[in-house]
Amino acid sequence: MPKEPKTLDELFHDTLKDIYFAEKKIFTTLPKMEKAAQSPDLKKAFAKHRTETQGHIDRLEKVFKEIEQKPQGKTCDAIVGLMDEGAEIMDEYKGSPALDAGLLAAAQAVEHYEISRYGTMRTWAEELSLRESVKLLQATLDEEKATDKALTDIAESVVNQIAEAA
Amino acid sequence: MPKEPKTLDELFHDTLKDIYFAEKKIFTTLPKMEKAAQSPDLKKAFAKHRTETQGHIDRLEKVFKEIEQKPQGKTCDAIVGLMDEGAEIMDEYKGSPALDAGLLAAAQAVEHYEISRYGTMRTWAEELSLRESVKLLQATLDEEKATDKALTDIAESVVNQIAEAA
Repeated sequence: MPKEPKTLDELFHDTLKDIYFAEKKIFTTLPKMEKAAQSPDLKKAFAKHRTETQGHIDRLEKVFKEIEQKPQGKTCDAIVGLMDEGAEIMDEYKGSPALDAGLLAAAQAVEHYEISRYGTMRTWAEELSLRESVKLLQATLDEEKATDKALTDIAESVVNQIAEAA
Repeated sequence: MPKEPKTLDELFHDTLKDIYFAEKKIFTTLPKMEKAAQSPDLKKAFAKHRTETQGHIDRLEKVFKEIEQKPQGKTCDAIVGLMDEGAEIMDEYKGSPALDAGLLAAAQAVEHYEISRYGTMRTWAEELSLRESVKLLQATLDEEKATDKALTDIAESVVNQIAEAA
């Protein structure tokens, strides 16, 4: 028996579960990154982003509400892979002058994953006329972009410091 | 015995192996995505991006040359995860009106991963005074950003068509 063709609202729901899983995973991983970071600026940035991430999780729960579904995560292979890369950096570069540069690279890869996901979901939400969700997803998208910009600024100063110390 | 602290040039080399693996993986996956896509514009975009990806691989080999290392890939967990998500979409949304929207989302997540990686590596190459590599990495970064923009345009038209057909 052929499967029923899946529609855009199912794709939206599937992707919502995926990003909900991702945000929760990020929330539990950020304290480890904060602890590992050497630069006080980077520690602060990770702590700030953890507070924001709690807000992103809350917003996603409101999106679930608008589509009348229970908040539920679904293993997101991409974020698992991205996190494994971050863990590898923390392990292999422990005590190294390049540790912070590596942590920043891992964090920015995660930010870009989220920017892509929130951009896509915002477009879908518009098409599905989910007015509240459009606003919620846009708000998080703006914060993710601001975080990426802040991390880029820190990355430049961290890399300069590594070069000066060498 | 404590490990030798790793430096920025080692981090650059490690990340270069990671993105080299990723580009090769993308190169072999794009024909499957082209075949799966329903929209002729999307098929064309995937075909064009495959040609570009070959160019990205060639550029990375020149970066390996500047740092006097043999071109070599290293399994990149993030791209493996991103590709698994794409494969899941192709499987679960086969024959569905939302298939192209899902393929586009997967492709844009990959683009953003690459944008983040090339941006990071370009910054590191500057710091390491790898003049040729800075130019090569910037050229690919510009192409990845252009591809992401082109995919966003197609995504909007694809999503409109899904809504009209519904």
